[in-house]
Amino acid sequence: MKKILIVNGPNLNLLGKREPEIYGAQSFDDYLNLLRKKYEGRLQIDYFQSNSEGELVTKLQDAGFSAIDGIVLNAGAYTHTSLAMADAISAVKVPVVEVHISNVFRREEFRHHSYLSPVCAGTIVGFGLKSYDLALEAFL
Amino acid sequence: MKKILIVNGPNLNLLGKREPEIYGAQSFDDYLNLLRKKYEGRLQIDYFQSNSEGELVTKLQDAGFSAIDGIVLNAGAYTHTSLAMADAISAVKVPVVEVHISNVFRREEFRHHSYLSPVCAGTIVGFGLKSYDLALEAFL
Amino acid sequence: MKKILIVNGPNLNLLGKREPEIYGAQSFDDYLNLLRKKYEGRLQIDYFQSNSEGELVTKLQDAGFSAIDGIVLNAGAYTHTSLAMADAISAVKVPVVEVHISNVFRREEFRHHSYLSPVCAGTIVGFGLKSYDLALEAFL
Amino acid sequence: MKKILIVNGPNLNLLGKREPEIYGAQSFDDYLNLLRKKYEGRLQIDYFQSNSEGELVTKLQDAGFSAIDGIVLNAGAYTHTSLAMADAISAVKVPVVEVHISNVFRREEFRHHSYLSPVCAGTIVGFGLKSYDLALEAFL
Amino acid sequence: MKKILIVNGPNLNLLGKREPEIYGAQSFDDYLNLLRKKYEGRLQIDYFQSNSEGELVTKLQDAGFSAIDGIVLNAGAYTHTSLAMADAISAVKVPVVEVHISNVFRREEFRHHSYLSPVCAGTIVGFGLKSYDLALEAFL
Amino acid sequence: MKKILIVNGPNLNLLGKREPEIYGAQSFDDYLNLLRKKYEGRLQIDYFQSNSEGELVTKLQDAGFSAIDGIVLNAGAYTHTSLAMADAISAVKVPVVEVHISNVFRREEFRHHSYLSPVCAGTIVGFGLKSYDLALEAFL
Amino acid sequence: MKKILIVNGPNLNLLGKREPEIYGAQSFDDYLNLLRKKYEGRLQIDYFQSNSEGELVTKLQDAGFSAIDGIVLNAGAYTHTSLAMADAISAVKVPVVEVHISNVFRREEFRHHSYLSPVCAGTIVGFGLKSYDLALEAFL
Amino acid sequence: MKKILIVNGPNLNLLGKREPEIYGAQSFDDYLNLLRKKYEGRLQIDYFQSNSEGELVTKLQDAGFSAIDGIVLNAGAYTHTSLAMADAISAVKVPVVEVHISNVFRREEFRHHSYLSPVCAGTIVGFGLKSYDLALEAFL
Amino acid sequence: MKKILIVNGPNLNLLGKREPEIYGAQSFDDYLNLLRKKYEGRLQIDYFQSNSEGELVTKLQDAGFSAIDGIVLNAGAYTHTSLAMADAISAVKVPVVEVHISNVFRREEFRHHSYLSPVCAGTIVGFGLKSYDLALEAFL
Amino acid sequence: MKKILIVNGPNLNLLGKREPEIYGAQSFDDYLNLLRKKYEGRLQIDYFQSNSEGELVTKLQDAGFSAIDGIVLNAGAYTHTSLAMADAISAVKVPVVEVHISNVFRREEFRHHSYLSPVCAGTIVGFGLKSYDLALEAFL
Amino acid sequence: MKKILIVNGPNLNLLGKREPEIYGAQSFDDYLNLLRKKYEGRLQIDYFQSNSEGELVTKLQDAGFSAIDGIVLNAGAYTHTSLAMADAISAVKVPVVEVHISNVFRREEFRHHSYLSPVCAGTIVGFGLKSYDLALEAFL
Amino acid sequence: MKKILIVNGPNLNLLGKREPEIYGAQSFDDYLNLLRKKYEGRLQIDYFQSNSEGELVTKLQDAGFSAIDGIVLNAGAYTHTSLAMADAISAVKVPVVEVHISNVFRREEFRHHSYLSPVCAGTIVGFGLKSYDLALEAFL
Repeated sequence: MKKILIVNGPNLNLLGKREPEIYGAQSFDDYLNLLRKKYEGRLQIDYFQSNSEGELVTKLQDAGFSAIDGIVLNAGAYTHTSLAMADAISAVKVPVVEVHISNVFRREEFRHHSYLSPVCAGTIVGFGLKSYDLALEAFL
Repeated sequence: MKKILIVNGPNLNLLGKREPEIYGAQSFDDYLNLLRKKYEGRLQIDYFQSNSEGELVTKLQDAGFSAIDGIVLNAGAYTHTSLAMADAISAVKVPVVEVHISNVFRREEFRHHSYLSPVCAGTIVGFGLKSYDLALEAFL
Repeated sequence: MKKILIVNGPNLNLLGKREPEIYGAQSFDDYLNLLRKKYEGRLQIDYFQSNSEGELVTKLQDAGFSAIDGIVLNAGAYTHTSLAMADAISAVKVPVVEVHISNVFRREEFRHHSYLSPVCAGTIVGFGLKSYDLALEAFL
Repeated sequence: MKKILIVNGPNLNLLGKREPEIYGAQSFDDYLNLLRKKYEGRLQIDYFQSNSEGELVTKLQDAGFSAIDGIVLNAGAYTHTSLAMADAISAVKVPVVEVHISNVFRREEFRHHSYLSPVCAGTIVGFGLKSYDLALEAFL
Repeated sequence: MKKILIVNGPNLNLLGKREPEIYGAQSFDDYLNLLRKKYEGRLQIDYFQSNSEGELVTKLQDAGFSAIDGIVLNAGAYTHTSLAMADAISAVKVPVVEVHISNVFRREEFRHHSYLSPVCAGTIVGFGLKSYDLALEAFL
Repeated sequence: MKKILIVNGPNLNLLGKREPEIYGAQSFDDYLNLLRKKYEGRLQIDYFQSNSEGELVTKLQDAGFSAIDGIVLNAGAYTHTSLAMADAISAVKVPVVEVHISNVFRREEFRHHSYLSPVCAGTIVGFGLKSYDLALEAFL
Repeated sequence: MKKILIVNGPNLNLLGKREPEIYGAQSFDDYLNLLRKKYEGRLQIDYFQSNSEGELVTKLQDAGFSAIDGIVLNAGAYTHTSLAMADAISAVKVPVVEVHISNVFRREEFRHHSYLSPVCAGTIVGFGLKSYDLALEAFL
Repeated sequence: MKKILIVNGPNLNLLGKREPEIYGAQSFDDYLNLLRKKYEGRLQIDYFQSNSEGELVTKLQDAGFSAIDGIVLNAGAYTHTSLAMADAISAVKVPVVEVHISNVFRREEFRHHSYLSPVCAGTIVGFGLKSYDLALEAFL
Repeated sequence: MKKILIVNGPNLNLLGKREPEIYGAQSFDDYLNLLRKKYEGRLQIDYFQSNSEGELVTKLQDAGFSAIDGIVLNAGAYTHTSLAMADAISAVKVPVVEVHISNVFRREEFRHHSYLSPVCAGTIVGFGLKSYDLALEAFL
Repeated sequence: MKKILIVNGPNLNLLGKREPEIYGAQSFDDYLNLLRKKYEGRLQIDYFQSNSEGELVTKLQDAGFSAIDGIVLNAGAYTHTSLAMADAISAVKVPVVEVHISNVFRREEFRHHSYLSPVCAGTIVGFGLKSYDLALEAFL
Repeated sequence: MKKILIVNGPNLNLLGKREPEIYGAQSFDDYLNLLRKKYEGRLQIDYFQSNSEGELVTKLQDAGFSAIDGIVLNAGAYTHTSLAMADAISAVKVPVVEVHISNVFRREEFRHHSYLSPVCAGTIVGFGLKSYDLALEAFL
Repeated sequence: MKKILIVNGPNLNLLGKREPEIYGAQSFDDYLNLLRKKYEGRLQIDYFQSNSEGELVTKLQDAGFSAIDGIVLNAGAYTHTSLAMADAISAVKVPVVEVHISNVFRREEFRHHSYLSPVCAGTIVGFGLKSYDLALEAFL
């Protein structure tokens, strides 16, 4: 059974409460339960969320040098501003898949560029919460 | 059973022959067989490839107003230059998922921008040929 | 009686079907009939549509060296990307009038620039299908 | 009978005197007479010219809230610099058609951008003085 | 009585010590006392300062979904770099007023752009510490 | 009692008539009466409006060298284009506070830059007509 | 005896009062007397100043088609924003010499570009009021 | 004897007819005969022209994997817009030499950049039709 | 004996583990021991590392107002994104020397710009870990 | 009697031979004689020309620390590329007046920017060889 | 027999010693001998190399007004920075052919632009030392 | 004993005379004596200064292929403009350390970019003349 860590960045703790017309009305905890049920026996899914860039860097470092098989990362707004997270991803050996819930390319100009995409293994954008599901699928 | 069309753009007919260090050594025909086998009974997968922007526009129009459930599109180089294809995708009613084999964000600057992403339902980048597989998964 | 060729570029074959809130609900064939009736005896109006940049270039060349009096051109998305069509217009001797149905200057940034305007005799933008009518008027 | 106001901006009072290789040798007064004759019984054509941005803004406001059917506007150099005129056009309820005598897209870079186009109903460029004629036609 | 939270970002804990020619010689605590006295009985003023982007995001979230009437935010340098804070402001329902002590438009180029202004209710710049006072006034 | 001049630029004479969803439905004259009543005995409020950049420059010069205590300026569209007004503000000795009714940072790109902000004493943006009120408050 | 018109743009009526560390402490009227004395019998010097772009355009037109030998123009801030004045200079037949009192190239970025320089006969920058003197010399 | 393919892009079929002051008055067929005569016994020269980007891509693919020694390519306007042709050149194993008849660096800005140059073996610009001759020489 | 603080930013805790071809194979702790030995009796060297921008800002503030003689700062990725750290350095009175292990000017474009350099006393780039040694030397 | 040095940069030794439609048909030596005659008894005029940036820098240094009253400098193409000459002008104490024969603002884009203007006392552009005469006048 | 001058710019004296993976291992002297032998009786080939921009300008001037038939110029790094050389080429009457050994379009961004190309008769790029050979061929 | 060459570029011969508030009041000769004394027995220090880019290129070449251990280079203004010097540094085998006396990142925009930094071994900026000392230290 593979071990996967899902990492969510700033404001993703508000899923379900925050702008539901963009991000949907489901909380991430509820969705996480669905995912764990779906992949039961195939994937062990850990979860981490933080609003702090520094904590996210540290988590990526810790996980990246531990015995896991992959990281699914939605860095939220830090996607577009955090070189420190990009450096952490480059530094670690575990493959990271970048996901976004909304179609960032259809939104404000500054959301079109990701510092993380070039250092991630792959990127999945715009499928709603299903983006996480597809990312897990990619690790199987 | 859902009906899906896979559309490949210019130079993707060379898969297996062209720069294998970027695109892999497998031909798309071989891979298509694997996909059809995997999704047997769940998806009917049609396939179209062309090097011509005009033919791709026409195909997207025809398929987009026909009785299919989704289009998986790898527009190759036209991703970065074809407004005409973007307009076709906007015009049709069938959802289109954009895929790329390589991590385009790690390559030349001009491959970082896609005219198609903002009008597609979602985008999947960098998983090798598996990008197509994940796109099909997204339609289930 | 003057001889005029109307040339429509990619996706304009979808008029009436495509995003009616931008392009209106009338098909171009219906509108062409109205135009031919209106200008009966004054103008002979030929018509050509293609989604292919190459075919449009060839048509402009052929018409441009034939015995016609003018070309009305709506190049659709190729307006913003096709240097080849601009070169064809420069190369031919027949005057070309550029038309657009919607007000392109009110839409996405990339629709504000036309490679064709500087080499056309004149440009008419934003009058709906009536833009074609005004262009024909310009040849009288 | 419809009521139309033609508004000319800075330096257009010099038509016939100013750079005739670009703007032609006919004065606007002479041309206006021709237009009034041509549209006699169909259009009542008023005329206003000013070199002052402020006076043009005020005229657009006054006309725009009066009982007229349309405005034909050649804002001359203010086309490329006047946000105040653009705001006035947005503010009024009467449709405004923008015209240019020369093909501005073939001239200096700074003449390629119009602050007015996005807020006008339509734009007609490059037909010499006939641009005004086509704009009147558009209101019929 | 309305409940208002004042939030100060990085380095604003140094007020009075830091570059007094730009930011003045008064500490924020002293000023806060003056404000509380001035608005006694009309406003209940809470205060939070942090140098950490993540803590500021979390505070905005917590306050933004609590029973308060408004937030006065001086995000300091994060004004110009923090998309995560902008997203938090968009996500919450409480109105946020952005303030700056110095006239940021007179300083370095990079201080002229604020990621926060478009998502705040309003912005007050350049009145020294009085900017906070005016922001409170705005909530009355 | 302090003497303040409120100066309004182009199209602000249309307040109440112009795009009420952006600028509100109240005329400025009505609002001015409210302000004068509110600050009775504390402020003497003069008022000037013009659509002409040159008249606004002259008014700023005249007021700026007269015996007044402050100017509240909403330069409308000239905010973004008028270096001449910026130079006038730099030249005079009376402090000028810049106000905007709408949140200009949420609107078109060209409204994000103000030539006036760097030479004004302070800037207040986005509080509707209350922006003027806060500016007056700033002079007390 | 040659006839020369000196034209001053916005805020130059403040010379002597406005920022004397940049523009000097002498009023233009005093300086004009000195110039008239110096060139007595050789040049007849007329003078015009306005803060209004429109009036300046009209003056350039009137003078430019009258019996004078040259225009010395300091357009002040309109140097950097007025296409309408540039068009007027292009339109007239009298040579125009552009002058600036201060070294504009040493000041803010936006003062480095002049719309007028390319259409003027020559440009003289940075000699204080002596710039006008040298311009007159250039017409002898 | 080496086998070389000459490929001409859009509008080059008009050579002799099109803007002779830029491209000369000789048709390419006539020139091709001269080249074949000059290199008789040393080079076998095949020829292909198309106005269609897609056909050019396909031809480059077919030739690029066939038993030829080199390709001389004048892509015309596609030089500046076709990533698809650049990708095809990268994909094939036969060396491609890029030629241009006119000195593209002396013409419009958009002709200064070639997507093809970085993937071609070499580039020859500005020698009129002799550019083809020098390219052939390069293969000897 | 002088007191110096060395501050390391995000991912520098991975030295020795992270991309050794860029950053070398030595851990910073080992190197710090060597430095302390070398400067024994001459410098007292304190050390702080954090992945959190906020903690780094706070540390710079605390140290910057304490009794130390200098700070050696390698801000890692925050070099290129952190205005908050730049503001902290401006705010404190202790001189800060910026160091980088790798030659950042030879790497990605976004690593060429440092927000910190203009506010640091000096910058030392590209000498491997020896950059720290030279910075210490600079304080002697 | 004042001592002035005229310094000419690259290709100005070709005056009279080089592009006479831009630079005129007179050699500089002939013109220098005229100038010396005109200013006899008032100015002693020395002359230096070089095609070498380094020699020009050295000459500016030598002259700039010698007993002369001013330098008239036409740096030719180095105007637009030589920071080293700008640094030399900043370094010396003698005032330098920049001259250009042609109206550089009417020519190629890259001739619109001068590295020298901000550090020169003044700039005179576009009066043909008379630009030198006016510069000498400026020193009287 | 035609007389040709080959001019090499900075660092080309190092050919054979300098980065052989880019420029090859042959010295230019050896290659020059081969060229002279090949073109014996047909071309007289002179040679000049300098690291000094000024000397190169002077050489181009001297040769450009002497009795020679053409210049082959590899300006090395000055290609991308020397307006003075471009001006010299414009000034002379002898045609100049620009050559580059490596494919400059495949290297650093700043090597993609040549100040010399627009003023040269033609440009040959990327054929190794054979670029010089093709340039000589072009003069025959 | 190691052999080091210090190379100074344009205007650095003026040290002590030139803008002492930026560059200090000490001549470089005096400072060189101090350095030679300090490193006596450990380093043999040669010195070269030139205002000529070409001579500096030649010196770098000569030294770079001679038996020395390192070069300390302050290229002055050529830092920001000389590709030829960058190419010379790339071409030679001896390591070059770039130094600057002032903090160039705090000065004009054009001094923030160095063509030399990416090809030098390391860069030391802003320590006054001590920058040279640290560079020598780096070679020990």
